[in-house]
Amino acid sequence: MSKYWSPLVEKLTPYVPGEQPKMANLVKLNTNENPFGPSPRVVEAITVELNDNLRLYPDPEGEALKGTIARYYGVQSDQVFLGNGSDEVLAHIFYGLFQHGEPVLYPDITYSFYPVYSGLYNIEGKTVPLTDSFEINPEDYKQPNGGIIFPNPNAPTGRYLALDKVEAIVAANPDRVVVVDEAYVDFGGESAIKLVEKYPNLLVSQTLSKARSLAGLRVGFAVGSAELIEALNRVKNSFNSYPLDRLAQAGAIAAFEDEDWFRATCEGVIGERDWVTSKLDALGFDVLPSKANFIFARHPDHAGEALAKGLREQGVIVRHFNKPRISEFLRITTGTADQNKRLIECLEALV
Amino acid sequence: MSKYWSPLVEKLTPYVPGEQPKMANLVKLNTNENPFGPSPRVVEAITVELNDNLRLYPDPEGEALKGTIARYYGVQSDQVFLGNGSDEVLAHIFYGLFQHGEPVLYPDITYSFYPVYSGLYNIEGKTVPLTDSFEINPEDYKQPNGGIIFPNPNAPTGRYLALDKVEAIVAANPDRVVVVDEAYVDFGGESAIKLVEKYPNLLVSQTLSKARSLAGLRVGFAVGSAELIEALNRVKNSFNSYPLDRLAQAGAIAAFEDEDWFRATCEGVIGERDWVTSKLDALGFDVLPSKANFIFARHPDHAGEALAKGLREQGVIVRHFNKPRISEFLRITTGTADQNKRLIECLEALV
Repeated sequence: MSKYWSPLVEKLTPYVPGEQPKMANLVKLNTNENPFGPSPRVVEAITVELNDNLRLYPDPEGEALKGTIARYYGVQSDQVFLGNGSDEVLAHIFYGLFQHGEPVLYPDITYSFYPVYSGLYNIEGKTVPLTDSFEINPEDYKQPNGGIIFPNPNAPTGRYLALDKVEAIVAANPDRVVVVDEAYVDFGGESAIKLVEKYPNLLVSQTLSKARSLAGLRVGFAVGSAELIEALNRVKNSFNSYPLDRLAQAGAIAAFEDEDWFRATCEGVIGERDWVTSKLDALGFDVLPSKANFIFARHPDHAGEALAKGLREQGVIVRHFNKPRISEFLRITTGTADQNKRLIECLEALV
Repeated sequence: MSKYWSPLVEKLTPYVPGEQPKMANLVKLNTNENPFGPSPRVVEAITVELNDNLRLYPDPEGEALKGTIARYYGVQSDQVFLGNGSDEVLAHIFYGLFQHGEPVLYPDITYSFYPVYSGLYNIEGKTVPLTDSFEINPEDYKQPNGGIIFPNPNAPTGRYLALDKVEAIVAANPDRVVVVDEAYVDFGGESAIKLVEKYPNLLVSQTLSKARSLAGLRVGFAVGSAELIEALNRVKNSFNSYPLDRLAQAGAIAAFEDEDWFRATCEGVIGERDWVTSKLDALGFDVLPSKANFIFARHPDHAGEALAKGLREQGVIVRHFNKPRISEFLRITTGTADQNKRLIECLEALV
């Protein structure tokens, strides 16, 4: 290790995002991006902001965007926290709300950034196994902890936990913060934001990268009690006053103002997801029930790694995790109708 | 304190950015923004990126922008680190390079975010007094430390440290990282980037917020040995894979490609700064020699706070720091010719 590095740096195991290949004409189904573009109103709103005012700092608190999100979900502005993508929001949550000398709980199969945050901030993480059917069992979260975090729907499984079960976990841990990471909730799930008034220990994070088709703009947020949001603001304002640029703030507001586009594109993704699911079923895949914009599936007769490789050779990229319990699965983002047909054709040649 | 907060949160004293007032027709000379807009090529480049591809993640490593910056300064891409403004870059520097169990050194009068980072990461900070003429004395940095950071030109004084003196500090601390924060270097200073090949412990941070008129876009970077950059990449990739959005990356590249605009606007700012300096001199102010885009000045007969208040009542906002040694000073950003004339007229009414 370099003598210049802080000692903890050597021990870090950074997150590895899905590949962003630069080749043209790929069917790119590996990073759960939306097959539909953002609302045209997003592009219009950014165009309006695209002028000499770029010389000026953005609003450090993003009050206009906070107000938009607060109105959308029926909460107050001081219950909304903004970040440079939900990954930054989650990092601040680990730092500001999870350091209590007890392990943070998350599922054994889940978003692989959680253990990375644990490592970054030297917070013990404890994995809680999903059931054999890859479900979260609320009973398993009745144990001492410094905080709890899980995605709903879970990633990369796509499995959704009904809101009464989410509530059971929150209610069973009144002295700890329970974070529900709802990156994919708009593709068929129900948000726990409706529970934040009832539970001061509940924090819900979301992103504009998935259902609002703005992965390229980097906007995420969290909703919870003002008490929790205050901790995140303190951390954020001790780290970087201006995480959201002027264009991102304008675009994000417009995304929330075009409800018709949002509904139509979510329904489009859901329809395509269900079509792919039926085709995978017909090809003999075991497909986990998904409420996300991706599908997690394995084939009883074909190794996951070989299928991913075979797809890649045909120009279709999906995500394969070489990890315990899930190494036989493919995680397949829902693409456009054309992309999904191409995916199925390629799989038909392989299985 | 809330039982949900990590204990460190209560002790945080967040950075307070300069006010971003929302009133129209203000002469806003309080946050060191550039009076000139960004290059028209920035707007063009962002317009090209403003399309359905916003649904896709940006390049997490920003390779194209890193390449542009590397070519501009004659270094390799792996010697460049990118961040969401230089504030984020500095935060990662504190975390990844300054945790060595000895105090980090910075001037007593300097960018007020440094002690905030120290507090955030529980790193002891030790202030090193500037001389009576508000200069950095390299001899004062020959003492045990866990790292050294100072802006050059310094903020809020505007005073510039000649490169041979910067080199003396770097050379005297071969086992520690010395960070030169060059947010304002393009307004008349010489960058220490030319020294990074010689000193593996030298790291230079810069921003596009000032000389490149892109405070609203949030892009900062650091240049140093690949060994130092690797530490920052590890921290960044354990925190947020995608800190720079697609539009910011495209705009930043274009900003570096329009050298003529950059030179002309920097010269414009320097000319205005020197005009304001001469007028302040004539009004009896003590003006520190500035190589930044702002001026730090006090009047022997008028309190700094009263002058700031008097200016505000006339619609001119400057920055006043209620801190030891500098409470009598005003920090005045260089504005447009019209703004600067208005500033001087308003001051003539006050002194």
